[in-house]
Order: sequence, then C-alpha cells, then structure tokens
Amino acid sequence: MPDPIITLTTDFGDDSPYAAALKGVILAINPLARIIDLSHQIPPQDVRHAAFFLAESLPYFPAEAIHIVVVDPGVGSKRALLFVDIDSIRLLAPDNGCWTMLRGKPQRVIHLDNKQFWRSEVSATFHGRDILAPVAAHLSRGVEATLLGPIVTQWNGLALAEPRKLPDSVAGEVIFVDHFGNLITNIPCDWIRANPISIQWGESASERLDWVRTYSDSAPGRLVGLSSSSGHLEISIVQGKAAKDLNARAGTPIRIVYEEPG
Amino acid sequence: MPDPIITLTTDFGDDSPYAAALKGVILAINPLARIIDLSHQIPPQDVRHAAFFLAESLPYFPAEAIHIVVVDPGVGSKRALLFVDIDSIRLLAPDNGCWTMLRGKPQRVIHLDNKQFWRSEVSATFHGRDILAPVAAHLSRGVEATLLGPIVTQWNGLALAEPRKLPDSVAGEVIFVDHFGNLITNIPCDWIRANPISIQWGESASERLDWVRTYSDSAPGRLVGLSSSSGHLEISIVQGKAAKDLNARAGTPIRIVYEEPG
Amino acid sequence: MPDPIITLTTDFGDDSPYAAALKGVILAINPLARIIDLSHQIPPQDVRHAAFFLAESLPYFPAEAIHIVVVDPGVGSKRALLFVDIDSIRLLAPDNGCWTMLRGKPQRVIHLDNKQFWRSEVSATFHGRDILAPVAAHLSRGVEATLLGPIVTQWNGLALAEPRKLPDSVAGEVIFVDHFGNLITNIPCDWIRANPISIQWGESASERLDWVRTYSDSAPGRLVGLSSSSGHLEISIVQGKAAKDLNARAGTPIRIVYEEPG
Repeated sequence: MPDPIITLTTDFGDDSPYAAALKGVILAINPLARIIDLSHQIPPQDVRHAAFFLAESLPYFPAEAIHIVVVDPGVGSKRALLFVDIDSIRLLAPDNGCWTMLRGKPQRVIHLDNKQFWRSEVSATFHGRDILAPVAAHLSRGVEATLLGPIVTQWNGLALAEPRKLPDSVAGEVIFVDHFGNLITNIPCDWIRANPISIQWGESASERLDWVRTYSDSAPGRLVGLSSSSGHLEISIVQGKAAKDLNARAGTPIRIVYEEPG
Repeated sequence: MPDPIITLTTDFGDDSPYAAALKGVILAINPLARIIDLSHQIPPQDVRHAAFFLAESLPYFPAEAIHIVVVDPGVGSKRALLFVDIDSIRLLAPDNGCWTMLRGKPQRVIHLDNKQFWRSEVSATFHGRDILAPVAAHLSRGVEATLLGPIVTQWNGLALAEPRKLPDSVAGEVIFVDHFGNLITNIPCDWIRANPISIQWGESASERLDWVRTYSDSAPGRLVGLSSSSGHLEISIVQGKAAKDLNARAGTPIRIVYEEPG
Repeated sequence: MPDPIITLTTDFGDDSPYAAALKGVILAINPLARIIDLSHQIPPQDVRHAAFFLAESLPYFPAEAIHIVVVDPGVGSKRALLFVDIDSIRLLAPDNGCWTMLRGKPQRVIHLDNKQFWRSEVSATFHGRDILAPVAAHLSRGVEATLLGPIVTQWNGLALAEPRKLPDSVAGEVIFVDHFGNLITNIPCDWIRANPISIQWGESASERLDWVRTYSDSAPGRLVGLSSSSGHLEISIVQGKAAKDLNARAGTPIRIVYEEPG
C-alpha cells in the first residue's frame, strides 16, 4: 500500500515558519506521511480564493489523500474546526465555508473536539499546527474519523452570487483571478451563445470580445472569452493580464451581451 | 523504517534553479531520500530571519530528519560549513549563527572538511549544491557524522538584543515580521502584566494596545498585543498588516508601557 | 527499488490551483509517485527562463526521474507535446525549445499523440493537467515511451545568441537573472583573461569590474565579475542586486573589455 498522502493548502506564505511547523508536527506523529504542498500562497484570510482553489484541485486527488486547509481569519474564536468527507474527498478545515464550492453532498461532517488527537498545548493563534496537523497525522495512521468528535449537520457556507440568463445577455461575476491575470467567472461556459458578443464589466466599461477555443486562436493583446479549464467563462488578454488591464478582481460584475437577441 | 527525511531552508527563491539543483544532487546520491521544502523564501542573506524561522520549525520534526540550511552571505570565503547536533536536531549550515536561536546546548558541532563526501568539483559560489547537499545525502544513507570532519568547540553566534523589565514597562525589539505583517518581538509573553497598556515603537510613536488572547477577540483594524504561537509578545492589527501601518521591521525597538506602575 | 520520481517545472504560480491539479492527476494514476516541485515561479510564458532553469537543474537528477515542464504560451494550438530523452534526462514538454539548452544530442524525441494515456476529456487550455501529467504518471508505472506516439526528428529550438571573442574584448548577453539579481551571461568563464577589465552593458554604460573568485572577495556594493556556479561569466553586486542597479535583464548586451589588448 502506498504511504499516506497529506496535502497542505494555507495562506501562511513561504517566508514564515508556519507551514514548516505543520510538516514537522505531521512527520513526528506519522513518519510515513507523504506531504504534498498545494499552496501556501492563498491571499491572507481570503476564504473565497481558497474555496475556488480547493474546488479546482482536490477532486483530482485519489480518495486516500487527507487534505489540510488553513485559511482561518477566525482562529482562536468559537468557530469550529471540521472534518469533512465529501464526494470521496476528506479534508480538515475551519468552519468558514472554504470547502463548500466542492460539488456534491457531504457524506459526513465532524466537529473536531476530541483533544486526545491534538497537541498537548494548544496556542490560541495557531490551530493549524496544534489541532489540524496532528489530527491529519492520526487519520493517516488509520484513526477512525468518528473518534475525532461528534457528527454535525450544520456548518457555514459561502454566500455565492448566482449567474443569471437574460434575453440579450448573461450576467455573473469574477470568482477567481489566476496567476496569469485571467478572470474566471461564475458563468457556466455552455450558457454562452455564438458570436458576436461584447463584455461589460464593473460599473460601465464595455468592449468587444473574441470568442475563442484557446488563447492562441487570437492575437497577442486581444481580449478574449473562452471556456476555462474548469468549464467556466474565462476572460483573458492573450499574453497579457486581463485583471490588470480591466481593473477587475474577485466580485467584479461581468455581463456578456449578444449583439442580436436570441 | 521510513525513508529518510531531508529538509531544505534557503534564500534561493523559487524562480532560480538553485533549490532544484540541490534536490537533484541529493536524489542522485540517495534515491530514497524524502525531500521536504521548508522555505526558499528566506529574504536574501538574512541570517536573522533564518534563525527565527529555524527556531520556530525544526523542533517539531522527528529526530531522524536532516536539515539543510543555505543562507550564506559568506559563500566561498573562509567561513566554515558545520554539522550541528542540538537537542535532537541535526542540521548542516554555514557557520554564521543561523542555528543559534535553537534552544539547548549543541551535543556536537563538526567542521565539514572531508572532501570525500562532497561533489568532485566545488564551485566557489554554490556550496549548498556542492557540499551541503551531498553531505546530507550521505548522512541520510547512514554515514557517521564523525567522518565528516573534526569536532569543533567554537562557532559564530548572533548578537541578539536582550529584552529588559523596567518598573513601568518592558522593552525589547521586533525579531521577526511574519507573512501577515505581524510583529514578533523578543519579549516573553509572560512578562506582560494585565491591562491597560500602551505600546511605543521606533523613535517616538505611541498608541493604546488591546491585550487579547487571539485576533478575533478585538475588532478589525484594532492594534492588539497577544502571545504569539511561540510564546513571544506579538503585535498585530486585526485583519491588517501591523508591519506596514507601524512602519516596523526586525530590529525596531518596542516598549510596552503600563498606565499604572506595578 | 525507490518509488518513482516526477518533477514539476511550471509558470503556474503558487496562488492558482493548476500545479495542485497536476499533482492530483499524477497521484490518482500512480499513488506511488514521489512528486518534486522544481519551480512554479518561472515567469509567465518565459520559455528562455525555463530553458536556462532546466539546463541548470535537470542534469543533477538521477536518470530514473521523469520531468514535467509546463511553460506553454501555445497551449491548445497545433504545437506538439513531446517526450524527450536527452543525455539520460527524460522530460515531457511543449515543443517550444524549452529543453534545447540541455547539453547533448537527444536519443529520442516522441510526439505525444496516443490519447490512451491522456485524461478522457482534454481542455483546450490546460494540457499540463490533461496530457502531460497523466502521461508522466503512466511512464512512471513502466509504460514504454514508444507507446506514447511516433518518433520525430524535427522540433523547435531557441534562437540563442552566440558569444564572440574579439581582440580587446568578449561580447555576449545576459541569459538569466537569478533571485539575487545576479546576471548570468552566455560567455564561458574561461574566455575571460586576467585583470584589469571593465564591463559595458546595454547601450553605452560602462564601469570598472573587480574580477573575483567569490562574492566575499570584494566589498559590499562593488561590481564584480566571477564564474557562475555553471561556469558562465556572472556579473554581481556584492550583497546587492546587479539587475536593478545596472537596469539589465535577459537579452541585455554585455561586453567585457580588457584595458591592454592581448
């Protein structure tokens, strides 16, 4: 059997010792654990960024993996820490909705309150190191999730804007800006009808949009719309940074307008 | 027995091929080694940053790990390279004091001078690749540390400022700015008496400080003092960046003043 | 036998879920794979940066490793994806020349076109996840490279400037700026004759240059020339950032001038 996999997704950055401390705690409890960094560059305390990140990465992993998520503006407060089993994905995270963009219905959500699997001293500001890391390590050694605490049936979600289909347009918003400055929206790509279309964003800006299959189908500098690798409408500038040029960010309203009503 | 663990802490950045070269050298000598990145984002040549980073991460690892540290402004000069065994932590580093914030007395310090465990050609500017990486790989295969060179009894430390207890205040300095802009000081948290207190920093700035258990005990934007996850006094702005707003950095003097003398 | 090694070199950044998705895809196909991050911080779509990065890191790895490279401005276009076996290095990359700074003649180059080893759905914008990652995972399970597609004898290279030896000077250009702001040039270090020399760069700037063995042989702030860890002429400012102070970048012309003709 392969050695167990534990992945890490945090907003700790790589210049601070926090991610390193998690790794040490995990390996001290389970020296066989294989630790996989997903990211330590989630923008600080940006739960929505984390939510999209997780939705676009965790489903690709084998079900054996255990995923630790530490983006935790509420650390030390009464917010719960959860074990979640959803669609064959097992993760440990604060109860802040960061996992609620994953598809499917959770099979089981557990409130971590059994201190037997925590570090003996728990800091008020570092539950990742003192609770989530040791719990993950114990899980990876075969501890049953049901021992971690009681099953719960309520948790916090994210208030996600719903995209809308209108007679002459579709409306939604940017939900993620990627490393290349591409704008990923909440609009399903198969909602978009054929050319020609224009895009409106923010308060009033508007521009023609090339509808393409991939970036290289248009010329450098062109504003294009295409299906993102996750099937969402993506707005891009070929070999450029759409987020910068359009001054757009997560939450910026996006409307795709057809020139001829359908 | 689990495969051996070798961790890496460097200031190489992630855009340059230097950390990748270390990994290749290690795996070519010991294909079983499990390489764990702690950080390649130590600020360039910032030995003090590295020292705090190591003190807050290495103690969590199992004793079997071997830790490589390459923050090395003196590369190629006569500064020694060391093997250090301190408090069940084994590390390889330049003799620049980067390990001297770790608690405890070193059991053994060895000056690496046995070229048998180095790469056959040694560059004057890349001892991490040509000396530390192959030595770590050989150690992870079971080579005895005593074969690496002679035991030494002298090494370079860091000139660390000592915090001071005064009748109406405690004085110290910032020793680390973390990824969230929190200021970690050299003042032990249990030196701080109860409310109310104010903080003075830098030349003359002064402000009221909420004394809290965790960030979420105060309101966004508030300046708070609390116990860091390592037990030091930490100065934070809730959901903000204290380092930026207070214009503080490692070395900035900090004084905590009681309103009523004790 | 050690578990198979798969390395990743991309321009995905660490804030986006793309590298994490690759890791999931690999581990779902081969749960035994050991994934090694080389970099996700190649500057976006900078094939030349990637080429130097690979040339300075891949040769150190054991031959068993499989290297995935995703710096892919042409994703989704008709550019091929390749398996390359060169000088005991096996890599998977887009056909954009990123591997052509590796020394030696390729033993075998294969055009990946056998969809049997791809993900069943292939996005037009994410061939790293949908083609390269699964192909690498299958290779790591022992699939023969010849099954991946036909052998090809033509591929794209990089137009690399050649350095020139002149009676009173040598001329070349910057090919890489490292994390410390050091300028690595395409001039072999053993072309440089003894002191004293000056350096000309860009349009017309010129300055005296200390020729040294290592940085610490000169004083902080001094402009020095030395042999890089790869044997190229490197231009550095001791404890400074030469790239910034000289306003130089990859492609900046560099000329080393002798004061007395040879």
